[in-house]
Amino acid sequence: MTTVTLSMLAKELKLSISTVSKALHDSYEISNETKKIVLQKAKELNYQVNPFASGLRKKKSKTIAVVVPEVANNFFSLAINGVESIAQAKGYHVLIYLTHEDLKKEITTMSLLQNGRVDGVLISLSCETSDTRHIEDLSNKDIPLVLFDRIAENIHVPKVTTDDKNSSYSATEHLIGQGCKRISFLSLSDNVSIFKKRQEGYEEALKKHGIKVDASLIVHCGADERKNTILLKRLFSRKNLPHAVLSSAERLAISCYETCNNLMIKIPEQVKIISFSNLQTAALLRPSLTTITQPAFEIGKTAATILFKGIEKKHFKLENEKIIIPSVLIERKSTGN
Amino acid sequence: MTTVTLSMLAKELKLSISTVSKALHDSYEISNETKKIVLQKAKELNYQVNPFASGLRKKKSKTIAVVVPEVANNFFSLAINGVESIAQAKGYHVLIYLTHEDLKKEITTMSLLQNGRVDGVLISLSCETSDTRHIEDLSNKDIPLVLFDRIAENIHVPKVTTDDKNSSYSATEHLIGQGCKRISFLSLSDNVSIFKKRQEGYEEALKKHGIKVDASLIVHCGADERKNTILLKRLFSRKNLPHAVLSSAERLAISCYETCNNLMIKIPEQVKIISFSNLQTAALLRPSLTTITQPAFEIGKTAATILFKGIEKKHFKLENEKIIIPSVLIERKSTGN
Repeated sequence: MTTVTLSMLAKELKLSISTVSKALHDSYEISNETKKIVLQKAKELNYQVNPFASGLRKKKSKTIAVVVPEVANNFFSLAINGVESIAQAKGYHVLIYLTHEDLKKEITTMSLLQNGRVDGVLISLSCETSDTRHIEDLSNKDIPLVLFDRIAENIHVPKVTTDDKNSSYSATEHLIGQGCKRISFLSLSDNVSIFKKRQEGYEEALKKHGIKVDASLIVHCGADERKNTILLKRLFSRKNLPHAVLSSAERLAISCYETCNNLMIKIPEQVKIISFSNLQTAALLRPSLTTITQPAFEIGKTAATILFKGIEKKHFKLENEKIIIPSVLIERKSTGN
Repeated sequence: MTTVTLSMLAKELKLSISTVSKALHDSYEISNETKKIVLQKAKELNYQVNPFASGLRKKKSKTIAVVVPEVANNFFSLAINGVESIAQAKGYHVLIYLTHEDLKKEITTMSLLQNGRVDGVLISLSCETSDTRHIEDLSNKDIPLVLFDRIAENIHVPKVTTDDKNSSYSATEHLIGQGCKRISFLSLSDNVSIFKKRQEGYEEALKKHGIKVDASLIVHCGADERKNTILLKRLFSRKNLPHAVLSSAERLAISCYETCNNLMIKIPEQVKIISFSNLQTAALLRPSLTTITQPAFEIGKTAATILFKGIEKKHFKLENEKIIIPSVLIERKSTGN
């Protein structure tokens, strides 16, 4: 089967290329009758507009990019579904880029996205990102940009996130209420805003309840899974085992379960575990996992909705606004008595 | 910051646009010295090639599409990581499209992809897909196409899958070995090849062991989660409860756990469960889930490697070959005695 070009279509219709093109683009210069004939023939011959020629003319790619650290993660896969739900309704394509928690990949991606390949960008930062110039560069190129979940406060674009500090505060209070004093905090990054906020909430709750913050109980995990496993093994091999662990990332909670199983440490009898998580199987784990469940789908949907405001309205400048959608604490057996 | 155009770059260099363009595209007509000066200035001004203009000329989008039913699924997210690992090495973008198990969305996507937006397509079919003309249309347009996991046998393109029939046969024999006779099979689709093959393996193993195939034990699930839950509730409310369930899809196994929990049915004492699954938490569930673990990352990687053969070699016609990468049966407590 050969690809039907505009000129083939024009020849078939015995019309000029310019007339056919204008008809296809619903120009006021063309009569409704002609438009109808052209569209009918285009459909009959399965004529497809060349996206590059079309993109060149309209300067619209009808594509948005979603840049996330990973996709084998329930939060991000649900957030992408939220983005998709809006993009599909708008007739837009979604390009998904994975940075694999690698700052270099994030920088390369941002640089590629500067050249008009997409009409807008949604990004959740890698856990290695501290310097955010590569994000600001994109924003300065007049490409609408919205940060979600893993945001950086200093970039002047809209941000959609959950109430990280409050949620972490409540989670810590929940553990204290269960009789825990020696509470460990697992961070995935010292750079990214949400992990800092989660740590702040944890520290504030401790202080409020007269518990001293013990730096040796704050575990600085990162992109390297093997390193994380070593750090957790060390934590769970301490003489004075923590009474509880507050994990700021789902995969760290899974690692905690695995490490405790290996070391024959009983959850929740010996150590209680709570985690920021959208794990579908949280209720089915042994023991079921108490979670701070984030509104992942809603966060993706809201971020996309704001992005399209920037894409659709020519003279609409996206504000440096921040939208916070609360998480929900779901108590299960991993923090029970 | 304004976007630097080709003409701005040419003006800055005091050269013609045509010379600058040729230099940027490494034309033999331009001296190495000039090329060096142009490239240096382009870098200095952060000049980015317009992807549409560039795509129009080279007819290469440097993008491939991966079309999958869902992304909140461990198999597909791992397979996408496998695809990404190859695409990134080749300097290609990966466009991810979700069909949400909806045939209409799959047809629309295939139609959009016909117009040169991507250089190649990897697809895993929705569970609603029986008529595959929309897939063949794409293949006929000379766009390299590779099917993976959820394939259709009748389409003459390369296919990468696991040994669905054998794995299912082994899984059924494992259950029979554990003393089960009344074994239920959960299908996600009667159309898609892999689910048919999994059912064949199940039926053959039963027959080999002198067990009659009982149609009432074959549950025809689909895209609608609520409907699936009703079907499973009915299955687990039978007077003659099945001894075991072989699930052909991960999310059906999770639904089985949830339903059994609700109905106070004990796994594995009352019913044993085994599932095709790449669930990261399989070992941590109560009870841990016996899985047929698919080589998801490898399947994605292999499919992408074959696709790039088709993209890179102008006169290389992709063969109607089939690559089968075996799955592994991992015994855990859900099928124990």
